Parts: sequence; C-alpha cells; structure tokens
Amino acid sequence: MTVQEPCVASDVQLGDDGRLRHLLTLDGLPRPVLEALLDRAQEMADSGEINARLSGTAVCTLFFEPSTRTRLSFQRASQRLGADVLAFDASTSSTTKGETALDTFRTIEAMGVRGFVMRHACDGAVAELAAVAGPGTALVNAGDGRSAHPTQGLLDMLTLRQAKGRDFSGLKVAIVGDVRHSRVARSDLHALRILGAGEIRVCGPAALLPDDATLAGCTVTHDLDAALDGVDAVMMLRLQRERMAEGLVGSLEDYHLHYGLDMRRLRRAANDVVVLHPGPMNRGVEIDDAVADGPSSLILRQVGNGVVARMAVLEALLG
Amino acid sequence: MTVQEPCVASDVQLGDDGRLRHLLTLDGLPRPVLEALLDRAQEMADSGEINARLSGTAVCTLFFEPSTRTRLSFQRASQRLGADVLAFDASTSSTTKGETALDTFRTIEAMGVRGFVMRHACDGAVAELAAVAGPGTALVNAGDGRSAHPTQGLLDMLTLRQAKGRDFSGLKVAIVGDVRHSRVARSDLHALRILGAGEIRVCGPAALLPDDATLAGCTVTHDLDAALDGVDAVMMLRLQRERMAEGLVGSLEDYHLHYGLDMRRLRRAANDVVVLHPGPMNRGVEIDDAVADGPSSLILRQVGNGVVARMAVLEALLG
Amino acid sequence: MTVQEPCVASDVQLGDDGRLRHLLTLDGLPRPVLEALLDRAQEMADSGEINARLSGTAVCTLFFEPSTRTRLSFQRASQRLGADVLAFDASTSSTTKGETALDTFRTIEAMGVRGFVMRHACDGAVAELAAVAGPGTALVNAGDGRSAHPTQGLLDMLTLRQAKGRDFSGLKVAIVGDVRHSRVARSDLHALRILGAGEIRVCGPAALLPDDATLAGCTVTHDLDAALDGVDAVMMLRLQRERMAEGLVGSLEDYHLHYGLDMRRLRRAANDVVVLHPGPMNRGVEIDDAVADGPSSLILRQVGNGVVARMAVLEALLG
Repeated sequence: MTVQEPCVASDVQLGDDGRLRHLLTLDGLPRPVLEALLDRAQEMADSGEINARLSGTAVCTLFFEPSTRTRLSFQRASQRLGADVLAFDASTSSTTKGETALDTFRTIEAMGVRGFVMRHACDGAVAELAAVAGPGTALVNAGDGRSAHPTQGLLDMLTLRQAKGRDFSGLKVAIVGDVRHSRVARSDLHALRILGAGEIRVCGPAALLPDDATLAGCTVTHDLDAALDGVDAVMMLRLQRERMAEGLVGSLEDYHLHYGLDMRRLRRAANDVVVLHPGPMNRGVEIDDAVADGPSSLILRQVGNGVVARMAVLEALLG
Repeated sequence: MTVQEPCVASDVQLGDDGRLRHLLTLDGLPRPVLEALLDRAQEMADSGEINARLSGTAVCTLFFEPSTRTRLSFQRASQRLGADVLAFDASTSSTTKGETALDTFRTIEAMGVRGFVMRHACDGAVAELAAVAGPGTALVNAGDGRSAHPTQGLLDMLTLRQAKGRDFSGLKVAIVGDVRHSRVARSDLHALRILGAGEIRVCGPAALLPDDATLAGCTVTHDLDAALDGVDAVMMLRLQRERMAEGLVGSLEDYHLHYGLDMRRLRRAANDVVVLHPGPMNRGVEIDDAVADGPSSLILRQVGNGVVARMAVLEALLG
Repeated sequence: MTVQEPCVASDVQLGDDGRLRHLLTLDGLPRPVLEALLDRAQEMADSGEINARLSGTAVCTLFFEPSTRTRLSFQRASQRLGADVLAFDASTSSTTKGETALDTFRTIEAMGVRGFVMRHACDGAVAELAAVAGPGTALVNAGDGRSAHPTQGLLDMLTLRQAKGRDFSGLKVAIVGDVRHSRVARSDLHALRILGAGEIRVCGPAALLPDDATLAGCTVTHDLDAALDGVDAVMMLRLQRERMAEGLVGSLEDYHLHYGLDMRRLRRAANDVVVLHPGPMNRGVEIDDAVADGPSSLILRQVGNGVVARMAVLEALLG
C-alpha cells in the first residue's frame, strides 16, 4: 500500500465542509464533533435504541489482525442500526494471498459496501485506504498499529462521563501500563486532552513508555503509588505477553509486583475512583480479581458503552 | 471457571417461579415443561412458521468446541425467529487466549446479548455460567462434556412422537453404541424416562458403557441382536474415532461386525421400527448405507426437527 | 459421492418445463434464459434495487474450496434480496471430517435451507448434488474444478454488454492465460458462443491451453501481440502460482515477459478496448498496474456486476 505522500489521518477524516467522513483518530477531532458522538451514544444507551437507519446498507468488518471483541461489538452495533454485516477476516483468509490490502478494499467497496470497520497491524493503514475511498464510502479505524483505536477512546470517555459528569476539568486520570505499544492509550490521551481533563498521569516501566511527543503535557512516573495518589480514574492497559519475549519486561510476576493494580494500591486513589480496562484482561498480571470485579470497576460498563459508541459513529458516517 | 459450590444444572435452569430460565439439561425437567416445548416445536414444524418474536434480540453461538451442524441449526432457528446472530468460535479464536470462559461470556453479555448457545468440552461448564448470568440472560446448552445435549434430546423425542404418537408407555427403544462418552445418549435417556418410555435397552461393548447410575432402569446388553429384538425405535450413536486410539475399541471392522446396524440385523426389530442417528454418521461403521438411507430411517427428519425444537427453546427462554 | 451415471450439468439444471432449476453451467443454456438473467441483473444495477423477495428464505454458502470474494459477493446478493445466509466453510470445518459432501448437503437441506451456493474442487460435484436435491432446493455452482463458474461468466457478459452493447456479433474478444485450468475461461467461452460473439481468440503458452474441444471455433495463438491485434475486449486470467511448481510455467518473470498485459502491448488492441480480470490479480505477472488501474480497465465494474448478476440468479431460482 503506497500513496504519494504519507496521509495525515486527522486531515483525511474531515470533509471540506468539516463533516466527519471517516473516523480514523480522535487526534485533532473538533471538540463539538467528539461531544456530539458522545451525546448520541449516551442517548442510545439510555433508550436501548434499535433502529433501521442503516437498513439496506452493508458494513464490512475488514480485519487484517485478529480480534473477537471489537469485531463482535461493531457487528452488534451494525445490527442494532439495521445494517447488513459482511465479515472479512484477512488473518485467516488464504484466498487473498498476494493481493494487496488496497485491492481487497477496492474489491469489497465495488460490491456496494459503504462502511468499513478496519483493523491493521500497520500505523496509518486505515487512513491510506480512506484517502482513496469513493465519495460514499466511510472507514472506521478499529485499531491500526500503535496509532489509534478511536472508538475505544470514545467508549472510555463515555464511561468516564457517566461516572464523573461531562466536565473533565477537575478530573485526575492515570493511564497505567504499556503505553508505548498501545493504540488504546493514544486514543484515550487524544480524547482526554480534547475534553480538557484536569490532570493526566502516565505510569509504566521506562521500557514501555513512549519517548516521543505522545506524553506532552502528561505527568510521567514509573511509580504506581505516586500515579494513583488521589486520582479519580485509572485506565489500565493490557500487557501483551510478547513484551516478555522482547525483553522489555522481566517476568509477569515482576510486572505485577510493580505495576499490577490491587486493592491495597487502589486505596491511594480517591474514594470514588473508577477503574477501566479495555480487555481482555490478564488477571493477576496488570489487574487483580478483587479490582476487576470490585465496586470501582467499570470494565463491563465499558463493553456495553462500546456498542452504543460504535452505533453513534456508524450512524454519523453512514446514516 | 470456579464457583463456590458445584452447581446442579437442573436447579439452575428453573427460576423460583418454576419457569424455564435456561436449558441446561433435560434431567429433572418437569414433564409438562418438556411436553410444552415439544408441542410448540410440532406446531412450528406443521406451519413452517417464521416470525419476528426475537426481532432486536441478539443470540450468540459461543462454541468452545467446534461444531458445524448444531451451530447452523441454532443459527437457522434464530433467523426464523427474527433474532440477530453473533458467532463466537473460541476453538479458532486466538485473541481470547488466556481469557477465561467466564470473562468471555460476561463481555459478550455486556454487549447486550441476551441468548447464548454454548458448547464446551467440560461437564457443567454451561451451568456454571448460567449460575452467574444476569436476570435477562438465557443459556442453552448445546453440548457440555459427556453430560447433556438437551436440544438433541428434544428433537429426538419430537421425531419419535411424530412416528409413534405421544404415548411412549408401550414403546421399546434401543440405544446403541458409545453411551459412556455420549451426551446425546444421556439427554435421550433423561427424556425417555420423563416421557415414560416402556422399555429402554442400552447396548454396546462393555468399555463403551457407563458404570454409574446413568443406566438405572435400563436393560443393558452387549448383544446387538438381543437389543434389537422387537424394538420400536433404534437410536444409534456416533463412534468417535479417538476411541480406537484410546484402546477402547479394537478396530472399525471389529466394531462394525458386532455393533454396526445393517438390514439383516434390523429385521429383528418391529416391522415399523424407526432408526435415528444424531449425525454425522460413520457410514459402514455404526450404520450401513441401506439402513441410513432406507425406509426406516428418520435421520434427515431429525435434522429438520432440530430447527423447530431449537426455535421452541429460544422462544420460551427469550420471547 | 457417486450417482448411477455421470450427470450432465446442462440437463440437470433445466426442469422438464424448461425452467431453470439450478445454475450449474452456462454450457447449453438457452439464449433467452441467459439474456433474461442479464436483463434482470442490468435492471438491478440501474436501480440499486434492494428488495425482500427472498425474505424468510435461507441460502447456504457451501464452500469445499476456500474463497472470499465469491462468497462475499453471493452473501451481499442474498442480503439485498432479504434472504438469510448460512455459511458452511468445509475447508476449515473439522467436524464433518469423514462425512461425505452428499451427507453434508442433505443435512443442511433438511434444515429447510432452499438455496445452496457451492464451490468444490471436483468437476461435476455441484451437478451431482443437484441431481439428488429435493424439489424446492436450488444449487448455484460457484465454481467446480475446471468445469464452470457460471455466475462469473454472467457478470463478465453483463460487463461486456454495458461497454459494447447487446449485439456481440461484431465483437472480437481475446481470452489470455491459463485457459486449461480455468473454470472462468470455460464459462466465458460458453457465454460468448451463446451470445454470438464475432471472434474469440484464445492465447497462452501451449502447456496452459486445453487440448480438447474446449477451444472449438476459437482462434488459438501463443503470441500475445497477435491475440491483441484490434480486439475489442481482453479477458485476462489469473495465473495460479502452483503452475510453477507443476513445471507448466518457467517463472513469473518469464510468464510476464510473454503473457503479461502492459500498456505497450495493449496499444495493439482497438482504441476503445476494455480489459477484464476475474481477480484477485497478480499485479506485475499477468497484468501491469497501468492496465489494471487504467482507463480501459473494467475490473472493479465486474465486481459490482457480480452482485447484481448473482441477485438475478438467486431470484430466478428461489423467488
């Protein structure tokens, strides 16, 4: 996949009229656009809405990396809008060997499919296809490389708003774990900045924190206790087991000792602290059962919010 | 997956009001509940009914063991009730590695999915999840370990009723094959007892018959000719090829010689005997072509009854 | 799978009343039947029609060979007609090991599925099942062995008609590549003859051309320049990489040198030449980027026509 010059996701996703054409990243998204998506998602959550706005519209889940949760969540969102779903799992498809992602995309687009929910291991891969998509076609980035996972960012913000109200200016949030390799963390950071979060703390071992502009404006610490002190929300990240093989983390036990969230540590946070995790969880590694299943946990509410957040996005792009 | 104490499927599936909340086993099911499901399934078979009772409802096929026939049958049943189907195939999913079945279930439940059709290699696995399911969630056991496959039991009873009438009190039934490892046989035994079958004969090599209370009240024999003598119905079981590797069966030829149903042997049965098999068949091993495709065979009718039996169950649980 | 005598696809697919019951091959299809399918497909293409003619009808994609594009195209076609789709991928299914294709088909048919879209590696496999299908069941051949891929032939003819008009009598068409192993080429040849194409040229290396009656009436050449001279349409075929291993083709470079379509060569064709390819393309092997993405290429239009051609077929068989 090559285009003339590297495309900038935040430019590609907005039409000349300022309307959202694709959702590639939360980075650079105008605050009113972001808040309108959250408001609509909340409305759908409150009403349990099932409509037929996308009846006759086909949405393709185009996954070049395997995923089950995100794919199912988008599938359910599409169903609740009356859309027809087509699944293309490039990670198991043998027939498209040798075909480029661009040819695969163009082929399915030519079938009259209007919505694409795409995941890809390469940064910018979704934006590259969005840049060449036809005028009626919309792409949703369901995760590209380490860059962005914007609907996860949306559902996390929706979850925080439900717990803490719409005004984030007094909110202290800690993001803990492998921020370096996490598209979830990047989308959360984008969204928290847009919504004006009061303080963003980022915590993890040095080898798992980015050394670029990702953390601009954040309080960075390698000490979990310091990160948790008085925070209103903790956003835990999944530890990918390949970090061990890469030598970035010593052992699961070691990681848990320093960066695992347990009840004892959580007591440093505000009394009404809430805990989020994008799942799937490594229980006993980055998070203990007592926290994951405890009263502070919003982890299952995140999952439910994922469906309505994705409904709001699909409706905005295709409705 | 652990819960405080081992849950008893027959307790978990009935609400305090006696209403069926889940379908985990036919064991202990009140006869009127069982007969109501069969009556409704028959009504749907007669009318070819397609309705929209589950429109807007999501049903997830949650298979931790591979299956094609059962999954397709439940999918078709869901479609005929207007439900949206989500497929989760844990046997091929790589993304949920390390996630427990409980977390997978809770996650999909949190997406607003109300019906779960679950298959799992462990006895009691479906009941364990049913015990922790939310109030609006219903689980259907599509096969757990060797314990139960209740919708197969239902469709087999429906098929027998169509052929032999509703009164089973004079009915002589033979179940032949690997009863020890068969959840199908257990669910058939549960149902036949509840419906008051006149005589239940169980036949197979000693190594493939259970040595516990499963066969209480049955006539047990290792002689197929004796088992078939004058019976009204023969329920053949599939021979899993791994029994050879386990040393429980000598060879396919040997098994066929002693326990394969052929036309010569079938002549010992009643003139209007009917033959059932849950499929997929090992032709030439447990059953010969002439029997499988002959006038006594109800094997394809079983498949059709599977769809309406599952419709009746899903409608009762989710409608 | 065995039947008494080898069944002839063109006989099986037409009922005694001359009505199309299955679509197995374009070979021997009466011209009015073929043209009616093309006319209906064109009507659907023009209107973007989405209807509910197959509401409540189940269509099963029964693939014994992997395919993504064709399966998705049929799935979209089914959705646009309101049908319910069931997918059976025998190439990944482990549960039906040992079960014959006939038993698999009969089982799914017994679930009340009326339409089957089937792909199989063996010539005649779809026709064999069609010969034993029940009266309400229709099969569509989505590719069997090297024999036929009739909906590809239909969509190619639809694409040619849109570009060149309905009268093919003055049309010069070149089919280039591995005709010997190509069911696409055979279905195109059948259709072009029925529609009275003016001249059909077939071009490829000797090892990749058939030595039977397939090419009757065609101009055969091993020289691509000669094949292209003044032609109105070029139908390129995909080069399967296994031809190298089989020793039928020296190398990709060698194949490209002699049979790859580039802009320089394409200039030999008529000024308004159109280029077709069934996909997926081996870019830089049988076709260059400049041709594939150039103004003569109808390759993406073929994909769109595939959906409406398949809608027309499914509607004719099941509507």
